[in-house]
Amino acid sequence: MTNAESPPRRKRRGFSKGRLEAFSDGVFAIAITLLVLDIAVPAGAGQHLLRSFIDEWPSYVAYVVSFSTIGAMWLGHNAITEYLDRSNATFVRLNLLFLLFVSFLPFPTRLFADFIQRDSPERVAVTIYGISLLLTATLLMTLWRYAHRAGLVRPDADDEEVQLLTQRLTPGLAAYLVLIVTGLFVPVVAVFGYLAIAIFYIIPFREVRPALRFWRQARRSSRPPETS
Amino acid sequence: MTNAESPPRRKRRGFSKGRLEAFSDGVFAIAITLLVLDIAVPAGAGQHLLRSFIDEWPSYVAYVVSFSTIGAMWLGHNAITEYLDRSNATFVRLNLLFLLFVSFLPFPTRLFADFIQRDSPERVAVTIYGISLLLTATLLMTLWRYAHRAGLVRPDADDEEVQLLTQRLTPGLAAYLVLIVTGLFVPVVAVFGYLAIAIFYIIPFREVRPALRFWRQARRSSRPPETS
Amino acid sequence: MTNAESPPRRKRRGFSKGRLEAFSDGVFAIAITLLVLDIAVPAGAGQHLLRSFIDEWPSYVAYVVSFSTIGAMWLGHNAITEYLDRSNATFVRLNLLFLLFVSFLPFPTRLFADFIQRDSPERVAVTIYGISLLLTATLLMTLWRYAHRAGLVRPDADDEEVQLLTQRLTPGLAAYLVLIVTGLFVPVVAVFGYLAIAIFYIIPFREVRPALRFWRQARRSSRPPETS
Amino acid sequence: MTNAESPPRRKRRGFSKGRLEAFSDGVFAIAITLLVLDIAVPAGAGQHLLRSFIDEWPSYVAYVVSFSTIGAMWLGHNAITEYLDRSNATFVRLNLLFLLFVSFLPFPTRLFADFIQRDSPERVAVTIYGISLLLTATLLMTLWRYAHRAGLVRPDADDEEVQLLTQRLTPGLAAYLVLIVTGLFVPVVAVFGYLAIAIFYIIPFREVRPALRFWRQARRSSRPPETS
Repeated sequence: MTNAESPPRRKRRGFSKGRLEAFSDGVFAIAITLLVLDIAVPAGAGQHLLRSFIDEWPSYVAYVVSFSTIGAMWLGHNAITEYLDRSNATFVRLNLLFLLFVSFLPFPTRLFADFIQRDSPERVAVTIYGISLLLTATLLMTLWRYAHRAGLVRPDADDEEVQLLTQRLTPGLAAYLVLIVTGLFVPVVAVFGYLAIAIFYIIPFREVRPALRFWRQARRSSRPPETS
Repeated sequence: MTNAESPPRRKRRGFSKGRLEAFSDGVFAIAITLLVLDIAVPAGAGQHLLRSFIDEWPSYVAYVVSFSTIGAMWLGHNAITEYLDRSNATFVRLNLLFLLFVSFLPFPTRLFADFIQRDSPERVAVTIYGISLLLTATLLMTLWRYAHRAGLVRPDADDEEVQLLTQRLTPGLAAYLVLIVTGLFVPVVAVFGYLAIAIFYIIPFREVRPALRFWRQARRSSRPPETS
Repeated sequence: MTNAESPPRRKRRGFSKGRLEAFSDGVFAIAITLLVLDIAVPAGAGQHLLRSFIDEWPSYVAYVVSFSTIGAMWLGHNAITEYLDRSNATFVRLNLLFLLFVSFLPFPTRLFADFIQRDSPERVAVTIYGISLLLTATLLMTLWRYAHRAGLVRPDADDEEVQLLTQRLTPGLAAYLVLIVTGLFVPVVAVFGYLAIAIFYIIPFREVRPALRFWRQARRSSRPPETS
Repeated sequence: MTNAESPPRRKRRGFSKGRLEAFSDGVFAIAITLLVLDIAVPAGAGQHLLRSFIDEWPSYVAYVVSFSTIGAMWLGHNAITEYLDRSNATFVRLNLLFLLFVSFLPFPTRLFADFIQRDSPERVAVTIYGISLLLTATLLMTLWRYAHRAGLVRPDADDEEVQLLTQRLTPGLAAYLVLIVTGLFVPVVAVFGYLAIAIFYIIPFREVRPALRFWRQARRSSRPPETS
């Protein structure tokens, strides 16, 4: 009972965002930097180094796609924690689960780099890669949804921005699902699709906001009986 | 003498928590992310990539168990430093010793992934793994006990929470001991036991607190002569 | 409309510098520390360890050149963010692109260490290395130019210092271009040139500033009709 | 001239300690965690895993010695930056040079683990290891000496503590020199000597201070004509 009345104690009850962000940033930074370890030109390349270097192109594609995806996840994570006042115990655990998938990504990336351009294994590698990305993105989405429902979002946050963030995280999941299926037939399309999703996430969504609001107001004022 | 009278100097005497946390978070984040480097599908997997991928399941189990354990250790470390006002020289050294074991964990994890499902070496690998976890958990416990005895805990900390943290750190050690012995006979039980302990540590203990307090009050008021 | 009037919201509109710096520092620190993983003496060195150790000199040269370059990039990045009041969405994305090149550097470094002192591949390796450095330096320059044009620089920043930073970032690019071409003919010159550029970036430019200002004032006051 | 009068500008002139510490902590944390990557039991260990595990003891010794040394360097670095009010351009560069040696340490550690217990290469490996430690410790010392001479130490720092820090950093260098020479004849002595130095650095020196001051005062008051 004394406990319930003491206001300074409440502050400690919520989990501080500081170490959560520091630890997450560390995992993101390491996962993104470990990707380069999987790029290697065969030691016996000898006289044909330039050709060997060029033949490694699947590694570069994999590096760029995974770097962009982890970068996009980091931006998304940033956008989420920016709207939070504080964290709580469940959010910290969900975040840990999300990081489990983020730090796993270098492995499917390696598979992808090793088996692309080889007939049958290519499909398997691209599918495993796609499923890993889908799971990671789903957890990022879950993090945001949980934060929203658990009331962790700052009370003064702009409702439209909050809604827009939700809207932006959703289509990625559907797109990943479509691309995973596509990849079973035309793996190369899936690869460029994954890159496109990462770029879509990376494009600053706040830039889109004023345009969006203007468009909505225009619609509302000019054609009132229209259904969206 | 002038020294003894100057209050701002005392502040520097205690070790600042900032760099301790930053360095610890770095070690946790790197150790947890390095785990993925030990997952690899044989380069010659060729046409049977899917099967090779599935055959790597001990690596995934090892990844999940070690990720969960290091994550649980990070949460425990977080819970401890959260209750501290400041650090001192001995605590920093104990913390360094704790990190020595944390950053060692990727090695027994690799052993574990490589030798599981092979008759005799399996027991050795699981035992080495269990002992590494036990030592790491013991040091985390020691860190907390030391902090408590050395008076580093904030004076305004809730006694019940402090006691609960101690209570939660203790059973893990006993469980590790039991599982190490069990692992000598039935290695696979030990493996899932280690995962269970990590999950037990990860479950937010503050959520348990109100229930616990309610249960205690109920017991105290209704059946006074009962011994716990 | 209510939105436009609320001043505390504006603060959240700009991207906080904290996590940008933390994430960037993480990537810099990891990329710079991963360089050592590529230094190895052949396991079969046996009795001739000292000789094997000395024969690894290209690895040490590559380590020092890349460490200095990444260190110089970190210093440059530091100098840039120091002048910024805040960040914005585009700057964060450009920064991510810059880090994509920074974290890629361990790969050309490894090529460089493996193929130097071997006739034809040496040129290829040194050229790939040079192009990687050029691209990274170009992006650092672009980051700064963008920040300057987008009005992210603190209003109270010293104009002369801002100009000097621009002046210092530019010649490096030209020098990289010249050295890439030189490296096609005399690879070893390019190598020491890359080291020289890194050292040039590393030398504290603020020390140069008072001398520069004095020299300018002297020139202006004594010989007015002179053209620079 | 306007420049000289504006007080807020001066603050930016000194290099902020924040990113210097964050970047250094990152490098320390990564270098210390990468050490574990060099511990490996041969893949073909099979039935004799326990024996193979025990046969890897030089790796564990190397791990403990290098972990302790990097940990000690981190503590020393911490002690130094704690006394600084601010940093300057030269200090940042010296710090970068110091980190170049810190992040190099995993390589001599690997050499040491691979070649100990083999007749002639053992001496070479231990000597290379010792020289690396000596150079790293020398740079740490240089960092502190520079900070002291350049007036970066807080004006309110306790002179006795400052002097004590200098006194503690010096004997390590002499000890490293003696051990490098000893290692040429009895490598194993050098190894335990390096561990002893690390532990000497790690023992909290502030605990020693009150004893030291008491001892000095006692000496001064009782036997005045004595020379130290």
